Amino acid sequence: MPAHFTPSPRIRRSPYFDATVAAGVTSFTVYNHMYMPTGFGDPMGEYWRLIRGVTMWDVACQRQVELAGEEAGRLAQILCPRKLEGMKVGQGWYLPVCDHQGILLNDPILLKLAEDRYWLSIADGDLLLWAKAVAAERSLAVTVGEPDVSPLAVQGPKAIEVMVDLFGDEVRSLGYFRFRETKLDGIPLLLARSGWSKQGGFELYLRDSARGAELWQLIAQAGAPYDIGPGCPSGTERVESGLLSYGGDTDAKTNPFEVRLERFIDLDAPDDTIGIRALRAIDAAGPKRRQLGVVLDQGGRMGLHDRHSQVFKGDTPVGRMTTNTWSPRMERNIGICLVWAGLVPGDTVTVELPDARRIEGEMCELPFL
Amino acid sequence: MPAHFTPSPRIRRSPYFDATVAAGVTSFTVYNHMYMPTGFGDPMGEYWRLIRGVTMWDVACQRQVELAGEEAGRLAQILCPRKLEGMKVGQGWYLPVCDHQGILLNDPILLKLAEDRYWLSIADGDLLLWAKAVAAERSLAVTVGEPDVSPLAVQGPKAIEVMVDLFGDEVRSLGYFRFRETKLDGIPLLLARSGWSKQGGFELYLRDSARGAELWQLIAQAGAPYDIGPGCPSGTERVESGLLSYGGDTDAKTNPFEVRLERFIDLDAPDDTIGIRALRAIDAAGPKRRQLGVVLDQGGRMGLHDRHSQVFKGDTPVGRMTTNTWSPRMERNIGICLVWAGLVPGDTVTVELPDARRIEGEMCELPFL
Repeated sequence: MPAHFTPSPRIRRSPYFDATVAAGVTSFTVYNHMYMPTGFGDPMGEYWRLIRGVTMWDVACQRQVELAGEEAGRLAQILCPRKLEGMKVGQGWYLPVCDHQGILLNDPILLKLAEDRYWLSIADGDLLLWAKAVAAERSLAVTVGEPDVSPLAVQGPKAIEVMVDLFGDEVRSLGYFRFRETKLDGIPLLLARSGWSKQGGFELYLRDSARGAELWQLIAQAGAPYDIGPGCPSGTERVESGLLSYGGDTDAKTNPFEVRLERFIDLDAPDDTIGIRALRAIDAAGPKRRQLGVVLDQGGRMGLHDRHSQVFKGDTPVGRMTTNTWSPRMERNIGICLVWAGLVPGDTVTVELPDARRIEGEMCELPFL
Repeated sequence: MPAHFTPSPRIRRSPYFDATVAAGVTSFTVYNHMYMPTGFGDPMGEYWRLIRGVTMWDVACQRQVELAGEEAGRLAQILCPRKLEGMKVGQGWYLPVCDHQGILLNDPILLKLAEDRYWLSIADGDLLLWAKAVAAERSLAVTVGEPDVSPLAVQGPKAIEVMVDLFGDEVRSLGYFRFRETKLDGIPLLLARSGWSKQGGFELYLRDSARGAELWQLIAQAGAPYDIGPGCPSGTERVESGLLSYGGDTDAKTNPFEVRLERFIDLDAPDDTIGIRALRAIDAAGPKRRQLGVVLDQGGRMGLHDRHSQVFKGDTPVGRMTTNTWSPRMERNIGICLVWAGLVPGDTVTVELPDARRIEGEMCELPFL
C-alpha cells in the first residue's frame, strides 16, 4: 500500500520528536492521536539490539489517564476488574479495563502514585473519556485528566547497566513493574521497571515535556558504552513474546478471557466494579474464542499484513490471524490468532492471507519464546 | 518531517481503500483508528475541482455512534446540549458534545433515523466510549455501538447533478443537512445533503462495507460527465470556510463558545443534559478565548504547519494559530486562531511560526469566504 503520511495539527508531536528525527527516524504510526516512531532504517539491527543489547524508544504516545483526589482509589477499583485492595504505592499492575458487558476497552498499566493519585498508562484508545464519564456520572470526588507525562522506554538485556550508570546500584533492587519518583539532572520523572517487550528494561515517565530532548540525550550518552540505539516497539518481538496489541488483536466484541488476560481479573472484585457481573457470567459459560499462536508452514519470510487473515479448519472458518511476522530467532513465520475456543495446540489449520494465498499452519500456545 | 507511515492491523482500512489505491491515492492520515486518504497527487487540481466541479472523498473514518432502543432519544438529549424536542426523522443536526465541565469532546452531526434510533457522525475521538459509559451508568434502555456504516462524500457545486442522475430529480428537494434512507443498485445507504466543505454536496452513508468498491465505481461513473475526481477533505477550503477541526483547532480545555459553536447550544436544554449547567456558567461569565481568522502579511505561499504557532499582540502572548494555509482564491496566507477574547477583528498581531520566523498579521472574523 502507499505509505506516505500527511502531518496534521490534529496529531501531536512527542517531546522526543526532534530527537528521533535527528536520530534518523524513517517512519511513524499514529497512536493516541500522537506520532510514534516505527523504524530507524535497520529493522533487523533494531530487532537484535532489543534481543541482545539495549534500545531506546519514544513511547510518549502511551498517555496517562490520571485519577486524582479523595476518591481516586475508589474510581480505580470501579474501572478495573482486579482487586486493588492490596496494591501499594510504587506498584504498576497490568490489567484489563472492560465495559459493562465485559468487553475489553483497553489494557493499561495502573500505576499507584499515592493513595489519592493513580495513572492508567493506556494502549491506543480514548480511555480518558470513559474514566471521565464514570467519575462524573457517579459524582466521585476525583479529577480525571491527562497530565504532562511522556514515557521513554529503555529495553533489552543491557538496559539495566545503563540505568545503574544513571541512577545508581539501587536500580537493581527495583522489582518488575515497580516504579519510583525521581529526578535525572533535575528532570522530573518516574522510573519504572516495565516496557512492551519481554527482554527486560525500564520506562522513564518524563514529567516535563519541555525537557524531552535533554532526557533523550542523557540516555543516548549513558547508553553509548553499551551500543544503545534508537528503536521502537517491535512487532516481531511482541509476537514471539505473545504480548497483546489492543485494537490490533482485538475487535469490538473481545472479552479479556479470549486474549489470555484472565490472570489479571479477580472475579470476586467488588460488585460495583464495571463489567464484573458480565465477566463472571462469561467465565461461567466459558469464553467462545481463544488466542493461540500459529506456526506457518512456509519457507520465505512473509511481511507484516495490516489486515486480519481468515483461519480455516478444513473448510470451516474458525477465526482470524490478527498479526504475523518472520521470527529471526525461530526462523519461521509465526502469527497470533483469535479463534474458536474448541481449537487446541497441535491442530492444523489453513490461513487465507489478504492476498488470497492459502498457507497451512499448526496452532500452538502463546508465547512462542 | 519524515512522512512515511507503517501500516498496522490496529488501523483499519476503509471499504473504499482498494478503490482509492486504484484511483492513485498518494497519502493518508489516521482518523478514528482508520486510514483516510489525504491526496491524489494534484493538490491544486483537487482544490479547484472542489470549488468549481465535483469531487468524491473516502470519509469512512467519519464513524457512527449508534444509539438504538426505547430510550435512544433520551440518551441523545443527555449527550447533546441542544434542545432536540423538535427534531424530525430525516434531519441531521450539527452540535457540540461536551463533558460535565462544558469542555468540547466532539462536534458530530446527530442524525435521527427513527424515534428509537440516532447516529452521532463523529470527528476524530472515541465518543463511543463516552456514550456507552453514560448509557450504562444511567441504566438507560438503549444499545450503543458502532454500526457498519461508511460515508462517501460527493462535494462541489456540480455534486447535485451527479446525485440527480443517480437518484432522480427529487434529490433537488432534499434540504441542507436532511437525509433519507435509500438504495443504489441494491446497495443500502443513507443519502444526506451534507459534507465537510461549504461548496455544497452530499454524503452517502454506505450501510454494507462489502459493497464499498461497487459504490465508489457507481459514483465515479455517474460523475464522469462532470469530470468528477478523487479528493479528500481540503485543509485549504475548510480554513477559507471557517470549518472547525476538532482536535486540530481545539485543546483539552476548549469549550464550544470559544470555537463559534454557541448557535448550536440551547442553554434551556433539560437540566440533566451533560454539561448544560457548566455551559450556562461559561456563558454568564463570558468565554475567555475566541476563534478568529488571521490574514498573514507575507507574499510567498506558506505550507501547512503541523503544530500550533504562538500569537503575540505586541510582546504579549495572546493565543495560538491552530492551522494555516495558502488561499488560492484570496491569494493570501490565512490562518485560524484561538486567542484571548479581548482581541477583535482589525487587531494586528505577530505570529511566531514553529520555525521561529515572525510574521505580522491582521485578525478578522471567520469565515474568510
